[in-house]
Amino acid sequence: MSKSIGVFDSGVGGLTVAGELIRQLPNENIIYFGDTARVPYGIRSQETIIRYSVDDALFLLKHDVKLICVACNTASSVALPVIRNHFKVPVVGVIIPGAKEAVYASRNKRIGVIGTRGTIKSRSYEKELKRLDPKVKVFAQACPLFVPFAEEGCLSGSEISSIAAKYLKPLKNAKVDTLILGCTHYPLLKPVIKKIMGNNVTLIDSARQVALEVKNILTSEGLLNGKHKAVYKFFVSDNPEWFSSLAHRFLGRQVMGVKVNV
Amino acid sequence: MSKSIGVFDSGVGGLTVAGELIRQLPNENIIYFGDTARVPYGIRSQETIIRYSVDDALFLLKHDVKLICVACNTASSVALPVIRNHFKVPVVGVIIPGAKEAVYASRNKRIGVIGTRGTIKSRSYEKELKRLDPKVKVFAQACPLFVPFAEEGCLSGSEISSIAAKYLKPLKNAKVDTLILGCTHYPLLKPVIKKIMGNNVTLIDSARQVALEVKNILTSEGLLNGKHKAVYKFFVSDNPEWFSSLAHRFLGRQVMGVKVNV
Repeated sequence: MSKSIGVFDSGVGGLTVAGELIRQLPNENIIYFGDTARVPYGIRSQETIIRYSVDDALFLLKHDVKLICVACNTASSVALPVIRNHFKVPVVGVIIPGAKEAVYASRNKRIGVIGTRGTIKSRSYEKELKRLDPKVKVFAQACPLFVPFAEEGCLSGSEISSIAAKYLKPLKNAKVDTLILGCTHYPLLKPVIKKIMGNNVTLIDSARQVALEVKNILTSEGLLNGKHKAVYKFFVSDNPEWFSSLAHRFLGRQVMGVKVNV
Repeated sequence: MSKSIGVFDSGVGGLTVAGELIRQLPNENIIYFGDTARVPYGIRSQETIIRYSVDDALFLLKHDVKLICVACNTASSVALPVIRNHFKVPVVGVIIPGAKEAVYASRNKRIGVIGTRGTIKSRSYEKELKRLDPKVKVFAQACPLFVPFAEEGCLSGSEISSIAAKYLKPLKNAKVDTLILGCTHYPLLKPVIKKIMGNNVTLIDSARQVALEVKNILTSEGLLNGKHKAVYKFFVSDNPEWFSSLAHRFLGRQVMGVKVNV
């Protein structure tokens, strides 16, 4: 069988990226690993995020993947250089693709970034945006309650609206015209965020751009599959039932036969 | 130096119990371990909660503690029998003391329990309450967003009030006269919970009763310290700065020199 694309995330959030890979690369097999025994990563120290991310990559390599997609903003922000240094396969994170799309989309060069504490503290988006266009002004905001709300399925209503309004106020005041959803959970909150930011602010969800980058790499390395029926395998480090129950919300399709790897 | 009381929790929540131990047992040394690299436990499977709790107990035993206090409702609910079976030192959890106080406090024998998903799913309080008084009616409710709100310091305001009102509505409708705060984070939300439940509902925070049970065991085993200046040591598996910054809110005093044990 052809080698698979490996995707890892701290939990279920990375399924939004896996879903986009499935849409854009229908002939590719995917092995997904969600580290549900140690989720969330966004509240942990850089050392711990790196240690966990290396574990996750090693698990995927045991399954002989041909490319690793780090479908977690926190892990991409903090651990990507270490993973790239350690392993031979191509590694794609979510930061650079998201930053590229934001710079492309912004007219007034005022770009907002929202994410977990870990992602925002790392300033990874800011560094990448400035590298792509030194004239860009970046406004970053951690939104620590967004992940629990998304995982609880509280995607609308007065509570999340009010919390989102507080988090987003400084970005609205800064008149950003582009907002990076710097966490794989946040696309679920798009309607709430859109309502607050208004129709003139472009929301950047890096999944689409990540899938495009994966496609480019596989093409240029001659690793793209020909037409065949793709196989998807899902592994977690804990709670396969919980993962399965949330998976539909994130992936947009049913996930069956989730296996546990401790 | 005299042996210490060992206290562990998934994170900072157990400090509410440590604080009560310090108040009631001023001559006892305490070694606290917060598993901040793997917090929260409340969303994990029983197998994983047991595995993590055994690790935590082993860490405390390396420090030669004379008693282990499991200051985490989820770990107490799920892992206490295994820890008791494995280790020789006395082990005190938070469920039995809280249940005892609730049965003692309730007049109408209708008792509410709130906690994490893990605690509520285990039905540990329900079993213990029924064992103490088979006539008791128990109404349980998981409140998964309470922990993130408490850790974010969002202890008042319209969002937490509205969320708490939704969680607590079935318990209010069930006319409980006693409500067990079955998670060490929840005492921080007491004002919000009290406002919703009303003055006629007794809120049970097991910390006081846990400290009393620890005192009883140490006394009966002849392990109680004589008058001396107590020493408190705090260890975490990640993020000592984050732990220190939250510690004051939970312990009611500054915590210095938190050490990391990976």
